[in-house]
Amino acid sequence: MRTYDLIQKKKEGLALTKEEIAFFVRGVTDGSIPDYQISALLMAICLRGMNGEETATLTYEMMHSGDVVDLSVLGEGTVDKHSTGGVGDKTTLIVAPLAAACGATVAKMSGRGLGFTGGTVDKMESVPGMRVSLSSDEFFRIAKNRRICVVGQSGSLAPADKKLYALRDVTATIDSISLIASSILSKKLASGAKNIVLDVKYGSGAFMKTPEEAKRLAEEMVRIGTALGRRICAFITDMDEPLGYAVGNASEVKEAVEVLSGRGEARLTELCLALASRMVALSLSLPAEEAEARVAEALSSGAGLRAMEGWFTAQGGDFSAVLQKDFAKASCEEELLSPQSGILSSVDALGVGRASCLLGAGREKKEDIIDPLAGVYLKKRRGDSVKKGEPIALLSCSDPARLPAAKELLLSSFQIGAEPVPLRPTVYAIVE
Amino acid sequence: MRTYDLIQKKKEGLALTKEEIAFFVRGVTDGSIPDYQISALLMAICLRGMNGEETATLTYEMMHSGDVVDLSVLGEGTVDKHSTGGVGDKTTLIVAPLAAACGATVAKMSGRGLGFTGGTVDKMESVPGMRVSLSSDEFFRIAKNRRICVVGQSGSLAPADKKLYALRDVTATIDSISLIASSILSKKLASGAKNIVLDVKYGSGAFMKTPEEAKRLAEEMVRIGTALGRRICAFITDMDEPLGYAVGNASEVKEAVEVLSGRGEARLTELCLALASRMVALSLSLPAEEAEARVAEALSSGAGLRAMEGWFTAQGGDFSAVLQKDFAKASCEEELLSPQSGILSSVDALGVGRASCLLGAGREKKEDIIDPLAGVYLKKRRGDSVKKGEPIALLSCSDPARLPAAKELLLSSFQIGAEPVPLRPTVYAIVE
Repeated sequence: MRTYDLIQKKKEGLALTKEEIAFFVRGVTDGSIPDYQISALLMAICLRGMNGEETATLTYEMMHSGDVVDLSVLGEGTVDKHSTGGVGDKTTLIVAPLAAACGATVAKMSGRGLGFTGGTVDKMESVPGMRVSLSSDEFFRIAKNRRICVVGQSGSLAPADKKLYALRDVTATIDSISLIASSILSKKLASGAKNIVLDVKYGSGAFMKTPEEAKRLAEEMVRIGTALGRRICAFITDMDEPLGYAVGNASEVKEAVEVLSGRGEARLTELCLALASRMVALSLSLPAEEAEARVAEALSSGAGLRAMEGWFTAQGGDFSAVLQKDFAKASCEEELLSPQSGILSSVDALGVGRASCLLGAGREKKEDIIDPLAGVYLKKRRGDSVKKGEPIALLSCSDPARLPAAKELLLSSFQIGAEPVPLRPTVYAIVE
Repeated sequence: MRTYDLIQKKKEGLALTKEEIAFFVRGVTDGSIPDYQISALLMAICLRGMNGEETATLTYEMMHSGDVVDLSVLGEGTVDKHSTGGVGDKTTLIVAPLAAACGATVAKMSGRGLGFTGGTVDKMESVPGMRVSLSSDEFFRIAKNRRICVVGQSGSLAPADKKLYALRDVTATIDSISLIASSILSKKLASGAKNIVLDVKYGSGAFMKTPEEAKRLAEEMVRIGTALGRRICAFITDMDEPLGYAVGNASEVKEAVEVLSGRGEARLTELCLALASRMVALSLSLPAEEAEARVAEALSSGAGLRAMEGWFTAQGGDFSAVLQKDFAKASCEEELLSPQSGILSSVDALGVGRASCLLGAGREKKEDIIDPLAGVYLKKRRGDSVKKGEPIALLSCSDPARLPAAKELLLSSFQIGAEPVPLRPTVYAIVE
């Protein structure tokens, strides 16, 4: 088999066989296929597409290109929740405790933030003492005892995807539904959860810009996941504006505590209840209504908050620190005042995410170090009325030199109009 | 400017600007753009195409990526003839003397053979003493005195094309009209001739398989060449069967002498007269009929043959050796006998070229050494009647171990039927 022939075939719009895709992924993984051939094939895939079977095979082969975590010792109730990335997306910190409180097991790896998109593991590390790098024994012990354990990515999970992603990133071959779906799912499947709830974001702060695109991606991933033997569903949710008020790291942990304490922002709470309910329904094979009732109860009874405490504590985190009033307080804060009166017609997620990143909450490059106290806290949401001079956001950081550029960017993220704006649904659709 | 953005733009089917193409070619030449980005862009170009202006710009930039030969000291009558490559194509050896005898100047670089395609320089080197590597002074002196000088490629002609071609060759991105046209023309234009006659082959022994494809390529090259200030035309000619009887090196030189002596095979002679006439018409600004008459006269009077002698002698070649009866005779010869009686319905150029290569007349890899006496001499042509047991070809080589495989391949290149076959035109069309 020759890579050349695979490229030629795909260039002509023909489907690759299972053997050909396996050969390709093997060659990517062991380095025997040079980058220039890989990128030529990636471009041909972008422009000619892959059918469902090809995409499932690519996913399967990438999943098996490295370690495959076996969570079976934890039973059938393991469930993973994966978001395609957004701004202010602290849902894992909320839905994991809610689902665990209902009997599901959330033993998962989470990513770190890059660019304007945050990462759960970075947020967790803003908690004093929290360890996100655990031995396998510790991971399974905590997952068994607490039904939650979240660690950073370790080992060699889907190394073929890592290689392909790095090349796609520099060759403008990111935006292929097949390549995106197989990239996300290969890692998720290799992480071992039996049940998977995906949160596919659309909007300015997401990779997919429209709900239709997000839905296509969601459908593809649900189809592949099902074909490869998982119970899986996908939410299509809005990421035109940030999720909740807090965008940062410590501040997002604090907001997660707020939600689990029953004081969360409405849309964020609504989304978390919906996600957690689906996680519980899938993993415990419960009817939707019963799962919803259990999750609602876990929230109102405080069982979710206690599950979070147990989880954080088990991973070394000082939960009492999180509950301190000034937990997320940075040394340098500045309010953004509304330049005019009116109704907030847009709070651009991308702009807010970038401003937060400029303050030090995110990484421009992988090597950058995060400031856990940096970030943006929104005081107003889309649809809110604002008065000229009224604070609409708080910028936090440790380095005052970062403020001016971030403030300017943040200001441009708010649009204020005269007319009321229509509400958008938090959840656009659920694909299953 | 970022290569990423160029790839993205082309992926979306948009046209690249002159500045973007110049940036790309510069980056290819100086090595600052990595291969994986180049190949991604090449694939996007293959699948999305380039418009006429993009292709002309790419050609111009590649032409200027290295040395540009200045032939202006030789006047306005310099003319180059370029074939896209074929089997048994010894036309340069014939048309150069004919055109020179009529007053045109053919001062050019020619290629070496690779795969089943022969190269003029290899053929020239089968002549004892012939030097194809000359100093610039020698080159211009001979071109001035003899009106012909043909040397191997030297210096750094269109290095960007060299790099791109090497990548296209391994990434299945060869078959783009824009990339092929710009590749051929960038080198031709850098070689400096004011007038260019292209011979675009189609058929089994050519890169283009159909006359329609060949015509599209020819039209593109004529359009670009004209846009870049050259007088240029292109022949579309048949390469389903080899050109003439001889396929090899010394044997092709010998056949060229036969043609210039008025004893050439009819189709080969016809093509050479047509090509040479157009070379003369273009370079001396003559009406077609007058150019044809002059070339016919150069052939019948022996002026063409004398021009060849002067040319070979000037480059150190022993012309008297070429005229010896056994000039092209190899130590090992074997006849191929017709397996049945009938009419030759096909003499497959690709098969004959490969058989000749197996005998040692060509190179599988660039480093291979050519056996100048190896090759295939056809005794019958398409349309000829053959009797069972009658010799239809002669295989020549220096190493008898090469015979069996070559013979088998050669045999399969002949198809014998019962019905007469329609004649195909030697020249399908002329694009100007």
